[in-house]
Amino acid sequence: MLLKLKAGAGPIRQQLRRQIRSLVADGFLAAGARLPSSRALARSLGVSRNTVVDVYDALVAEGVLVTDGTVGTFVALGPTGRVPHRQVALSEAPGPRWSAAVRRLDAGARNSPEPPARAQLTSLSDLDPWWDRDDAAEWRACLDSVLEDCHQEALGMPTAAGYAPLRQWLAGHLRLQGVRATPDHIVIVNGCQQGLYLVTRALLDPGDLVLIQDPTYPRALECLCLAGARVLGVKVDAGGLDTTALLDQLAVATPKLIHVMSAYQNPTGVTMDMATRRRLLALAEEHSFYVVDDSFSDELCYAGHLLPPLKAQDQLGMVIQLGSLSKTLFPGLRLGWIVAEPAVTAVLTRLKECCDLGTSPLLQAAFYEYCRRGHYDRHLARARRVYAQRREALAGALDRHMPPGTSWSPNQGGLTTWLNLPAGITSLRLLEGAVARGLWFEPGPRFYVDGGGESQLRLSWARLSAEEIEAGIAVLGELLRGELGAAGPGPQQAT
Amino acid sequence: MLLKLKAGAGPIRQQLRRQIRSLVADGFLAAGARLPSSRALARSLGVSRNTVVDVYDALVAEGVLVTDGTVGTFVALGPTGRVPHRQVALSEAPGPRWSAAVRRLDAGARNSPEPPARAQLTSLSDLDPWWDRDDAAEWRACLDSVLEDCHQEALGMPTAAGYAPLRQWLAGHLRLQGVRATPDHIVIVNGCQQGLYLVTRALLDPGDLVLIQDPTYPRALECLCLAGARVLGVKVDAGGLDTTALLDQLAVATPKLIHVMSAYQNPTGVTMDMATRRRLLALAEEHSFYVVDDSFSDELCYAGHLLPPLKAQDQLGMVIQLGSLSKTLFPGLRLGWIVAEPAVTAVLTRLKECCDLGTSPLLQAAFYEYCRRGHYDRHLARARRVYAQRREALAGALDRHMPPGTSWSPNQGGLTTWLNLPAGITSLRLLEGAVARGLWFEPGPRFYVDGGGESQLRLSWARLSAEEIEAGIAVLGELLRGELGAAGPGPQQAT
Repeated sequence: MLLKLKAGAGPIRQQLRRQIRSLVADGFLAAGARLPSSRALARSLGVSRNTVVDVYDALVAEGVLVTDGTVGTFVALGPTGRVPHRQVALSEAPGPRWSAAVRRLDAGARNSPEPPARAQLTSLSDLDPWWDRDDAAEWRACLDSVLEDCHQEALGMPTAAGYAPLRQWLAGHLRLQGVRATPDHIVIVNGCQQGLYLVTRALLDPGDLVLIQDPTYPRALECLCLAGARVLGVKVDAGGLDTTALLDQLAVATPKLIHVMSAYQNPTGVTMDMATRRRLLALAEEHSFYVVDDSFSDELCYAGHLLPPLKAQDQLGMVIQLGSLSKTLFPGLRLGWIVAEPAVTAVLTRLKECCDLGTSPLLQAAFYEYCRRGHYDRHLARARRVYAQRREALAGALDRHMPPGTSWSPNQGGLTTWLNLPAGITSLRLLEGAVARGLWFEPGPRFYVDGGGESQLRLSWARLSAEEIEAGIAVLGELLRGELGAAGPGPQQAT
Repeated sequence: MLLKLKAGAGPIRQQLRRQIRSLVADGFLAAGARLPSSRALARSLGVSRNTVVDVYDALVAEGVLVTDGTVGTFVALGPTGRVPHRQVALSEAPGPRWSAAVRRLDAGARNSPEPPARAQLTSLSDLDPWWDRDDAAEWRACLDSVLEDCHQEALGMPTAAGYAPLRQWLAGHLRLQGVRATPDHIVIVNGCQQGLYLVTRALLDPGDLVLIQDPTYPRALECLCLAGARVLGVKVDAGGLDTTALLDQLAVATPKLIHVMSAYQNPTGVTMDMATRRRLLALAEEHSFYVVDDSFSDELCYAGHLLPPLKAQDQLGMVIQLGSLSKTLFPGLRLGWIVAEPAVTAVLTRLKECCDLGTSPLLQAAFYEYCRRGHYDRHLARARRVYAQRREALAGALDRHMPPGTSWSPNQGGLTTWLNLPAGITSLRLLEGAVARGLWFEPGPRFYVDGGGESQLRLSWARLSAEEIEAGIAVLGELLRGELGAAGPGPQQAT
């Protein structure tokens, strides 16, 4: 419980009202979140029920809360129109009896505070990639040309597997990376998230065992929980995956699949090394489980050398690769692809058709045009240069501002940097102070399968200038030193 | 079995090879379809297994079939790049052990022959709506303006519930039709199909009872089967739904939901009348089941008077309305919406986020711009005029060319016309002759839950000119008279 009433801090009703208002304003209670019943809250706080009822009524009158009189009291929608879903506990949600699948979403949710809606906030949490007005203009020209030349094809019904010329182009692009791909190996989807959703829906029955890198991307956990999987984490180590732990796990039970991000893992930024890849694929073949590789950022290499996709080493067709434009170009296109053996893509295509008939042919045809004109390759080259500069800015800022006891891994690519805080400092508490200073980041616990990460946090910085990165990290450093009660910076870097 | 070997019609191997080649060319065996094993086919045809093996080998050498040597023999992908999925039996498909959900897709599939890939084919099956170059140009101007003015917003991450200004606009549009909608009642999705998918995923557990209009849209059946629902059909009558049959069913068991298309039902074109609507809603409230109303074409009224959406009569929030641009503007946008009570949309939003994070904000923002400029309303007005003319052309052609014993319902709106053939004529056999004459339509059996429709067929004609409609219906009339062995047309119209 986040509420705490103190004797001598003013009337109880005022304290309670102020605290709930702050929780909403700072995003700890998201729009749409259900509040405890007045009876339950009164009991847990040790106050009378009338007190809570009065406070709720006052906050409803203020517009902070809404109530429908019978079902419950909820946080009102904010002026941003942000959606009331992150923190609605489905087991308690009003309305119909939801399916078992949807009720499992609660187990998968890794809720963390939502950023307050403030214009001045510096977000070190935003995973949108860099692009500029030139990219948008090139994209616009491609859309124009598609609507000029083939509007019937672009505006008519899609084919479920995707726009054939785009699948052809992607197959060629993947072959250059060593992946033996034909158009039949490719299904176009609405981003990596849909790719993962379709794969889990097609392969998993409730109770199936799934392994996943730990820490990992929280929305992958949600997908797995929706499918009813038993999810076990396998530690991310310096090589990308603790294969000793994996082997121990395989001795107990064989998973249906393992989910990894082989390049620039989210959140840690770690890339799986060649020895680990070989080991993982050998085990997948020996034990017959699929390796779902979310390669959302594998082309964002700006230091060190680029490894080929895991799928390039795949001899027996055990790797299902997920690709996306969301971290390399524009997330707003919702374009991604699944790369797998044709026997798998045939079924995923059929499932995709049942889910939404197919991805917008307009966006697919325009993206094909964008690729055909060479814009995509040129954009990737520009983006890599921008990220390399920002990474330098980040590394310099961390060196200057982090107090002793803080460590981080210098990125070779991707969009995230993982920070280990000095002993005794928790990222959630740090975040409370950060919000007051107009700063936002992702606290570590969100990313863990079964707890952990209290003293870790993720920084992402792709859309911030060098100056914004410097300013944000300086504030983070001040907050950390404040927490430590120590003065003076002192760099310390580790892997 | 479609293969039939005749004595005296040449060598068995040649007959078999020719027949399989024709089945593929005419689309009766779709790309990716698995052929019977040589042993099974030999047994059913009463020929030696070597004969079948030789024929399969010859067709593989020709490129008509492919084989992987061990798993089986399949129809090769055609030059159109069409996807091998419609007729792959998942219970037999090679590859991994698929989830129970995906294996249920087979039960939901209502396979029918796929149209052959011929440029000259007149399709009376295509459900794409009418639009022209002017509409495409207006849409392009809206996309341009969005990319000029707010490319960051349009190209960045979506919010899962949808672009707030568009939800606001849609709420206003719905209020004009009598639906008490606010933006919180709306989730933007990738077309009606995704709307239905999300609703079924959120509400249904395997074994749940679902009622559906019979005949109905085959892809709705697929969605329900994927969810594991027990599906029972309720007959479509002149009022839209046989409420006596519904009442009988409710006496036995209460469904979780009923799926209807209240306006211009696909395939029958029938609109639910007010008495039936009231009865349905009263029963839904009394028995507590949801009414999922796929209102994909309720704005396409071009004769008679437009009824308000079913949701406008909904007192207790039992109606979940699905809307879409796919039948009113451009299917290639993959834009649709769900209208339901906020307690329902909150959960659907969360599920949508897990499935694909959200619908493309670029397309949403451009569609909002399209609406804001008044293009959408003007397009609907133009489309209604075009459809009214084409409906006249269709009615005239049917009057002229259909032999006695044929009946149809004159459309008041929507994009489909349902034909009852003279006794003894089956639509599947008629289709074989039609393909040879370059004509295509949807045979009736595809649309039924548990069989039926042998002597019915669906015509759709939204993208055909009056001349094309006349020519197509003339051919259909000739074929019918040929089948009947009778000469001379004779109109007969019924309801």
